[in-house]
Amino acid sequence: MAKNVGILAMEIYFPPTCIPQEVLEAHDGASKGKYTIGLGQDCMAFCSEVEDVISMSMTAVTSLLEKYGIDPKHIGRLEVGSETVLDKSKSIKTFLMPIFEKYGNTDIEGVDSTNACYGGTAALLNCVNWVESSSWDGRYGLVVCTDSAVYAEGPARPTGGAAAIAMLIGPNAPIAFESKLRGSHMAHAYDFYKPDLASEYPVVDGKLSQTCYLMALDSCYKTFCNKYEKLEGKQFSVADADYFVFHSPYNKLVQKSFARLLFNDFLRNASGLTATMFSLRLNEGQHPFSLSNIATVMNLSEKLKSRHEFPPEKFVEIMKLMEHRYGGKDFVTSKDCSLLAPGTYYLTEVDSKYRRFYAKKAVENGTIANGHLR
Amino acid sequence: MAKNVGILAMEIYFPPTCIPQEVLEAHDGASKGKYTIGLGQDCMAFCSEVEDVISMSMTAVTSLLEKYGIDPKHIGRLEVGSETVLDKSKSIKTFLMPIFEKYGNTDIEGVDSTNACYGGTAALLNCVNWVESSSWDGRYGLVVCTDSAVYAEGPARPTGGAAAIAMLIGPNAPIAFESKLRGSHMAHAYDFYKPDLASEYPVVDGKLSQTCYLMALDSCYKTFCNKYEKLEGKQFSVADADYFVFHSPYNKLVQKSFARLLFNDFLRNASGLTATMFSLRLNEGQHPFSLSNIATVMNLSEKLKSRHEFPPEKFVEIMKLMEHRYGGKDFVTSKDCSLLAPGTYYLTEVDSKYRRFYAKKAVENGTIANGHLR
Repeated sequence: MAKNVGILAMEIYFPPTCIPQEVLEAHDGASKGKYTIGLGQDCMAFCSEVEDVISMSMTAVTSLLEKYGIDPKHIGRLEVGSETVLDKSKSIKTFLMPIFEKYGNTDIEGVDSTNACYGGTAALLNCVNWVESSSWDGRYGLVVCTDSAVYAEGPARPTGGAAAIAMLIGPNAPIAFESKLRGSHMAHAYDFYKPDLASEYPVVDGKLSQTCYLMALDSCYKTFCNKYEKLEGKQFSVADADYFVFHSPYNKLVQKSFARLLFNDFLRNASGLTATMFSLRLNEGQHPFSLSNIATVMNLSEKLKSRHEFPPEKFVEIMKLMEHRYGGKDFVTSKDCSLLAPGTYYLTEVDSKYRRFYAKKAVENGTIANGHLR
Repeated sequence: MAKNVGILAMEIYFPPTCIPQEVLEAHDGASKGKYTIGLGQDCMAFCSEVEDVISMSMTAVTSLLEKYGIDPKHIGRLEVGSETVLDKSKSIKTFLMPIFEKYGNTDIEGVDSTNACYGGTAALLNCVNWVESSSWDGRYGLVVCTDSAVYAEGPARPTGGAAAIAMLIGPNAPIAFESKLRGSHMAHAYDFYKPDLASEYPVVDGKLSQTCYLMALDSCYKTFCNKYEKLEGKQFSVADADYFVFHSPYNKLVQKSFARLLFNDFLRNASGLTATMFSLRLNEGQHPFSLSNIATVMNLSEKLKSRHEFPPEKFVEIMKLMEHRYGGKDFVTSKDCSLLAPGTYYLTEVDSKYRRFYAKKAVENGTIANGHLR
């Protein structure tokens, strides 16, 4: 079986358009600090009318392949996790296939995984399992997590965001899964769901959702600790891990969560959702699949710094336009890609048959021309 | 690594409500034999207003656990493949969790896989990979494939259907995967999609869809043969397999497909969709996980015989009601379960917050009372 299977390489893309939470909070008439201190939020990315989960995924995938020098023919599995539905049947994965079809590679397993914010985690775990299974054919797996999280005006709006992350999966990874250490908590709950099919916005019970999150955390941690103790013959405590990474609906909840784990360590003690706690082991790895190169490629600080802050009126105007366009057909976008970095994909048109068309912003040195993907 | 991983047990459920294609064809004013001979269709199941993909899945899962004597605590992974979306975020899998939560089992990985009719295949392959991976914890996997396929009035309507199949996955299976023999074909195409989010009906380009199907078949077969030849050191031909099983959009296409494989064997030679050709090896197995017991439990012929044929006017009336109810809230159903077998789950209500409520028809001997799942 393949050893130390995990994340070999990563790329992240998020829109250049964002709104500072301090500004949004004032615009919404919320009390000062409600979003920034109460929720722990700083600045929120959002898709303008030329971007969506498909274009962001295209950008992240092509950028990863290019920056790590990966031959598209060497991808044997591609799967996407998202909670943004632009089509109830056609997977986002198929929108990414032209990148590989161009090189004659259509033998690529995997589709989309869906359950609210857990889809990306499910896709990642599935892909790792594939590499460890007998059906692995020696090629890389590629996992894309993407979402454009938007909420109706109200208390949940500042917890939105937009991004796509592409992860290359294979053996001997600098970020390797310790697959025996895994605890899940899954339950039937109505804390966050999207039953109004024509609307992009979810139905959210904020209070219940927070309860679900913390319940799931307790339950996952308990299962995780039990498995650790069986495997290692000693009790697990937070001191046994160097870092904890949490799913972040909003940042304050993450701070609370870590405190809760410490609390659980003292107590040793579930309704709602899908959650998994798992363990990763880091090692520097070998170029290009090294931690330092991953950090260089992702270039997170620079990307964050180069974003464009939009005034709240403009943000609200864009949200209104997107509400109208969601699930719609027969429109062309502004095709305004002035804020996008070279090499970024963007939406140009949705035709009368709901078919979506994207273009790629030319790279400045002219090596990549605008290309239409049909 | 676990050996001979595959399907240990199966159960199928489909609604008792159906319409003979001969009757539908006459009602639709189609030429005689268009549906029955032209498409090769016989009789189409459909959900009445008290059934949906969630209730059918509940029925299939509980029936499988009961009939094969499986302890719900021994399920470590549960995943669902479907192309029917009742909620764009909350997975069907979470609706099934109460069956396991009741026994204190919430540590169950897996969510929903989506891409048109391929979701079920993706879920099955994912689950097999899990059992073969290092994250397998020794428990069973459970895969549910379910769909309520309905089409707008027109040429695609007779290709509908409704069912749920539950499959128990583990090692030493009577239906084992030969995982090295697998060919996929994935591409970007607009042959079948559901971009009109408020409608249950897909957008279908029937001609393109058929082309896609046959292209994918050619491509998968080519990849499959290449892998077989590399592995076995000899050419593959249809004579090397005892049975061929095809995805069946309509039965005539399956007949054409098999003929095409024979044709390909002579020729040895893609745009659209997601398809995988894979190989299964059968052996009798051991009770209760034996081929003969699986056939006994599924009881397919009897179940088909005991269906109730509806007149076309009634069928159309139900389709109209379902169009209206799709994505809706704040209604109660007739709760008429007179046609349902004992032990079948059915929809009773969707409340003002879109929450769905189901009941279970009492088993005649009274051991199972009506139970509401909230």
